[in-house]
Amino acid sequence: MSDRLRLGIAGLGTVGIGVVKIVQRHADLLEARCGKRIEITAVSARDRTKNRSADLSDYAWETDPVALARRDDVDVFVEVMGGSDGPAKAATEAALAAGKDVVTANKALLAVHGQALAETAEATGRVIRFEAAVAGGIPVIKALTEGLAGNAIRRVMGVMNGTCNYILTRMESAGLPYETVFEEARQLGYLEADPNLDVGGIDAGHKLSLLAAIAFGTRVSFDAVELEGIGRVSIDDIRHAADMGYRIKLLGVAQMTGRGLEQRMSPCLVPADSPLGQLQGGTNMVVLEGDSVGQIVLRGPGAGEGPTASAVMGDVMDIARGLRIPMFGQPAKTLAEPTAAKVSAPAAHYLRMTLLDKPGALAKVAAVLGEAGVSIDRMRQYGHASRTEAPVLIVTHKTTRDAIDVALSKFGATGVVIGESVALRIEEV
Amino acid sequence: MSDRLRLGIAGLGTVGIGVVKIVQRHADLLEARCGKRIEITAVSARDRTKNRSADLSDYAWETDPVALARRDDVDVFVEVMGGSDGPAKAATEAALAAGKDVVTANKALLAVHGQALAETAEATGRVIRFEAAVAGGIPVIKALTEGLAGNAIRRVMGVMNGTCNYILTRMESAGLPYETVFEEARQLGYLEADPNLDVGGIDAGHKLSLLAAIAFGTRVSFDAVELEGIGRVSIDDIRHAADMGYRIKLLGVAQMTGRGLEQRMSPCLVPADSPLGQLQGGTNMVVLEGDSVGQIVLRGPGAGEGPTASAVMGDVMDIARGLRIPMFGQPAKTLAEPTAAKVSAPAAHYLRMTLLDKPGALAKVAAVLGEAGVSIDRMRQYGHASRTEAPVLIVTHKTTRDAIDVALSKFGATGVVIGESVALRIEEV
Repeated sequence: MSDRLRLGIAGLGTVGIGVVKIVQRHADLLEARCGKRIEITAVSARDRTKNRSADLSDYAWETDPVALARRDDVDVFVEVMGGSDGPAKAATEAALAAGKDVVTANKALLAVHGQALAETAEATGRVIRFEAAVAGGIPVIKALTEGLAGNAIRRVMGVMNGTCNYILTRMESAGLPYETVFEEARQLGYLEADPNLDVGGIDAGHKLSLLAAIAFGTRVSFDAVELEGIGRVSIDDIRHAADMGYRIKLLGVAQMTGRGLEQRMSPCLVPADSPLGQLQGGTNMVVLEGDSVGQIVLRGPGAGEGPTASAVMGDVMDIARGLRIPMFGQPAKTLAEPTAAKVSAPAAHYLRMTLLDKPGALAKVAAVLGEAGVSIDRMRQYGHASRTEAPVLIVTHKTTRDAIDVALSKFGATGVVIGESVALRIEEV
Repeated sequence: MSDRLRLGIAGLGTVGIGVVKIVQRHADLLEARCGKRIEITAVSARDRTKNRSADLSDYAWETDPVALARRDDVDVFVEVMGGSDGPAKAATEAALAAGKDVVTANKALLAVHGQALAETAEATGRVIRFEAAVAGGIPVIKALTEGLAGNAIRRVMGVMNGTCNYILTRMESAGLPYETVFEEARQLGYLEADPNLDVGGIDAGHKLSLLAAIAFGTRVSFDAVELEGIGRVSIDDIRHAADMGYRIKLLGVAQMTGRGLEQRMSPCLVPADSPLGQLQGGTNMVVLEGDSVGQIVLRGPGAGEGPTASAVMGDVMDIARGLRIPMFGQPAKTLAEPTAAKVSAPAAHYLRMTLLDKPGALAKVAAVLGEAGVSIDRMRQYGHASRTEAPVLIVTHKTTRDAIDVALSKFGATGVVIGESVALRIEEV
């Protein structure tokens, strides 16, 4: 076994530079821990002239990440470029073909091509590790794949997009509407170039699909994640939810049910005094539930130079220490093709509607809900400046989303419900 | 490589039986994940006739755990008997000598003999894994040793004795004195046979010393842990702390400072709205702080059949998958002998005292504090039924415990402080 491990780093954005800094700062510490000198031999990025906050002069430069991946002096290909296709995919494939192990932070790549890449890696005897792809600095892939390996996993939940949690938290604390806080977030540089990756739930959905594959021994099936972004969450709903003891989070939930694999990424209400409810700002949280361990909650920074580089280096250290396990915790060929559950597990729901303020209005709504099989747990009617309409909140008993949708579709015909009503799931956490 | 991994389980209490149940229930799942059949070949306990909630008839029985450890048909010796010496130590040594890997839940054994056992294991090419020894089902040893391996660790904190947290939480919620809740806990079976292991902070101190060894690359030094139990925490202090926005926790803190390694296990105030402050009942929480990752918080069940067995099985699965790293994250011989910090890092402190209710009393106390170099951040004086004495609370600015102790030692001479005053550290979390 060689006494050094040589990294080739493709991508010199925040994460790549973070990795460079750790290797430079902690060479001795890393060697003490893994018995090998961790070295960087070559790096790659689009623009060599860009000013970067680390000294790269000792490393060979490749403009083409595929060329980097094939270099003889690279043992581990570190892919921190991003993007589900294009150079990231080509270079990762080239690295595996050339007999390199791969460490990647690229959730989009893995959510789309994870199965094929895992099969390639196993066919060539290489490993792909991806701790940094999910929940930044939180070692959740390791906790789930290794720490809880003795458990049948029941459910995985998480707040895994810091930008969305920042927006929702800030809306509540500052009493500002979505559009204003979205614009703030954009100016602060919190949003991806395509903001829909964040606020549309796509980025968090990618992460959820990777966790689900490990948890349930199934092929990654990002396409089957039911996605709903935070763009329609209103400050009214945030306030009313708070009044009733809840907070609204963009929450991912994956669970295996009798109806198949359920994967949802959507705005949900959670109890304000639960760990998920208490999560403020850009911090991430993942909840893992196993049949033996019960519930484990992991909390930490979901993004940023240091945290993400920490996760990449954890993977590098694992490889240096000789840990070689299949990407999703079992051989890729043995992962089952999941059946997507068409119906979500029943849950209580929060409903908000505006009623004409006239006798019998509430009775009509209650009748529609009753006919759809939705029973009411709690109800509140608020006063309103206009005196002709009244906001009404309802928390239902456990019911299916289908039943809720049936009821919503019939509200219009009652003649007493004004505009569009809102329905949000209340997740038991 | 063999296609099976054979366990010998020494100890058939809660944890041992939990392990048996997982192996029996999940044989196929475990094999899918690690590529090997996990089998139990032999078990050992003091009393064979005891009624146990698992079928043990397929396993060979050894009365002597040392004999179990030496059996040819055992690959991994699972030590879940407990006790820092005696059979647990003898059997663990025998297992290593016979070429077996070891998985143990025994924090007392490792806190006292961890260094020697690690050296023996490395000399014989065996591994010792001990996830279940710290914080039950939370995979914190793995997170710290592997997940954060790229970080210089700054501080490790934890609430790691569920019984103490149950007692403190229950005192607050029910408004009951320590003695009453202690007795409740005893009757509920929450306390060790020697309750001082729990309420004296010894058990949690054992755990802290193991985390410190990994975090700072130092030899386990349990003897250097500054231990203070919860027996002197009064319901008054819990109430007053709550009034000021704090909760009292038996908190372990380990950090490397310019003055050496600081290891404390003591009742501390933490902000009520922090993750540590919000921790209720028997749940455990560990906070890991690294220079790159920032702060990671792990929360989960700290004891019980399922959670502890989950941790044992995580270790077994690691061994089955070929993970072989040094016990404390680097070779035992390279662990440094730590210098114990004689002085704790400065912190704000909570002081409670009872003053004679007469003019100038508070000024005298303030003068004593000032002379000791302790400055006051906040102060509250409460009314009191007796009208001749008044409880006074002070939150200091950051200061050393030494300065606090100097001040306390001079309170008596003021003639206005009645009885013993209380000083508790406020940990920044």
